[in-house]
Amino acid sequence: MRLKDLGEFNFINRISKTIKLSSRVIKGIGDDAAVLRHTKDKYLLFTADMLVEGKHFHKGAKAGLVGGKALSCSVSDIAAMGGVPKFAVISIGLPGSLGLKYADGIYKGIKKAADRFGVDLVGGDTVGSEKIIINIALTGEVEKKSLALRSNAEENDAIFVTGNIGGSIKLKHLNFTPRLKEARFLVKNFTVNSMIDISDGLLADLGRILKESGKGAIIYESAIPVSKNALGFDSAVRDGEDFELIFTLPESSACRLKKFWPFKTKISEIGRICSFRKGFFLVRKNGKSERIKPAGFTHF
Amino acid sequence: MRLKDLGEFNFINRISKTIKLSSRVIKGIGDDAAVLRHTKDKYLLFTADMLVEGKHFHKGAKAGLVGGKALSCSVSDIAAMGGVPKFAVISIGLPGSLGLKYADGIYKGIKKAADRFGVDLVGGDTVGSEKIIINIALTGEVEKKSLALRSNAEENDAIFVTGNIGGSIKLKHLNFTPRLKEARFLVKNFTVNSMIDISDGLLADLGRILKESGKGAIIYESAIPVSKNALGFDSAVRDGEDFELIFTLPESSACRLKKFWPFKTKISEIGRICSFRKGFFLVRKNGKSERIKPAGFTHF
Repeated sequence: MRLKDLGEFNFINRISKTIKLSSRVIKGIGDDAAVLRHTKDKYLLFTADMLVEGKHFHKGAKAGLVGGKALSCSVSDIAAMGGVPKFAVISIGLPGSLGLKYADGIYKGIKKAADRFGVDLVGGDTVGSEKIIINIALTGEVEKKSLALRSNAEENDAIFVTGNIGGSIKLKHLNFTPRLKEARFLVKNFTVNSMIDISDGLLADLGRILKESGKGAIIYESAIPVSKNALGFDSAVRDGEDFELIFTLPESSACRLKKFWPFKTKISEIGRICSFRKGFFLVRKNGKSERIKPAGFTHF
Repeated sequence: MRLKDLGEFNFINRISKTIKLSSRVIKGIGDDAAVLRHTKDKYLLFTADMLVEGKHFHKGAKAGLVGGKALSCSVSDIAAMGGVPKFAVISIGLPGSLGLKYADGIYKGIKKAADRFGVDLVGGDTVGSEKIIINIALTGEVEKKSLALRSNAEENDAIFVTGNIGGSIKLKHLNFTPRLKEARFLVKNFTVNSMIDISDGLLADLGRILKESGKGAIIYESAIPVSKNALGFDSAVRDGEDFELIFTLPESSACRLKKFWPFKTKISEIGRICSFRKGFFLVRKNGKSERIKPAGFTHF
């Protein structure tokens, strides 16, 4: 049996089931970042993202954007936990024949993003490889009371999404802004029951919140903000690498949130969390309901 | 100009010079692991190692050994700081056509090493790639008083090395034991002024201690423990991936160390730290001195 016969998510599930963890791990594999015992008031967060030329960016993509994306993916993971990013180590595989200017450009992009999001670049590894590979491992911190997991969505929670979704392949996937300040505002001012960043598509990632929380949801086509770059609604909700946030909070806070939201980045209320028994449904513009089977991007 | 014209170490120096760090970073790029503010008594350590098929292991190498090596490299980095490893995130690039058994084998090797060295595997990333790529980022902790840097070697320190050096390409580079318990014993019971693990060769890595500490050294061919797998003395001191420790401590403790060393892993006293002005010399078995120009393995 080959990896692609099993599929990426089945493979990860298979691996993670066999891993035993010590009591210092609050949450291991299965959220945007690991949650680890740290200080009296805070958890340590820990995440990594690997970008491979030809998969996550095309050969010849602007070096600064490639570097910026590499760090921003991990910052987005920390944001989705409600945390603040801190320290990064960067592992890069580069062909020896690569132009120095391009290699410098990648690091410049990483540094620019690091400055912007308050990350210290503290180490890493450099190796020779045929294709460009960038792995960034990032730690962060979050106040215990601000932690936002995927697994705590509650019935009747309002479901929100930031920004517009879909069509990120046109440029946004290489040039997005992780929703760090938005996430921090949310966890500081509201009871965010669950949060995730969109890496594999709105339906797939909302599906993860539902699975981890043991809940269902009803979402409305008319309320979902589709990017003008998307091919259409049906592809927009399946397109990966939006790096927007999906979050849920009690219905009672939804009005206050919309009233006091201070950022240009828009937020859209797209539906409600319901019981697991009710399932996951999309209400079309014509009023008809469709049962959703989440399916996102798989790497194998 | 291409990367290989500049060389790996020049490229890293060039990058690290341009990085500004906040005051929460005690030591950034330039030691085995980054040293970061953490608790009142302890520092946080942070390191990453990237292994690429065809560079760090050959295609078809035993999967369990490949996985074990990936984690052990990083454990060795934490050990070389005097610390204890804690949490790892694993990023793996795998071809979709890879046999599931081999992919499982890599993870089994990682898990076995994680269990052995008390590491929690808390997350990671899985991507598709043509060649197998494994990046492990590892955090650790070290008591402030136990921290061992490269940069604090002092004049008249005795220089020690663990195990035998050279010839690791025959098998050891894939199947070594990071000297974690030895390092912990050292920092708990002795004033270790400097320490490093051998990744690029005895001369290159001792050269790093000297450079970072602003010191010179005299080492003795007759005292250097050469592995029976090495081609000879001159290649042994330049072979990379020994993953043994080089450490220095005050001459006055050297006898006590040799007397009370509790492990099977041997230690050899190979020379003395001297002033920078005196330089870096190797005394041959015939009594003649040679000036050393450290040169290790470069990835470009």
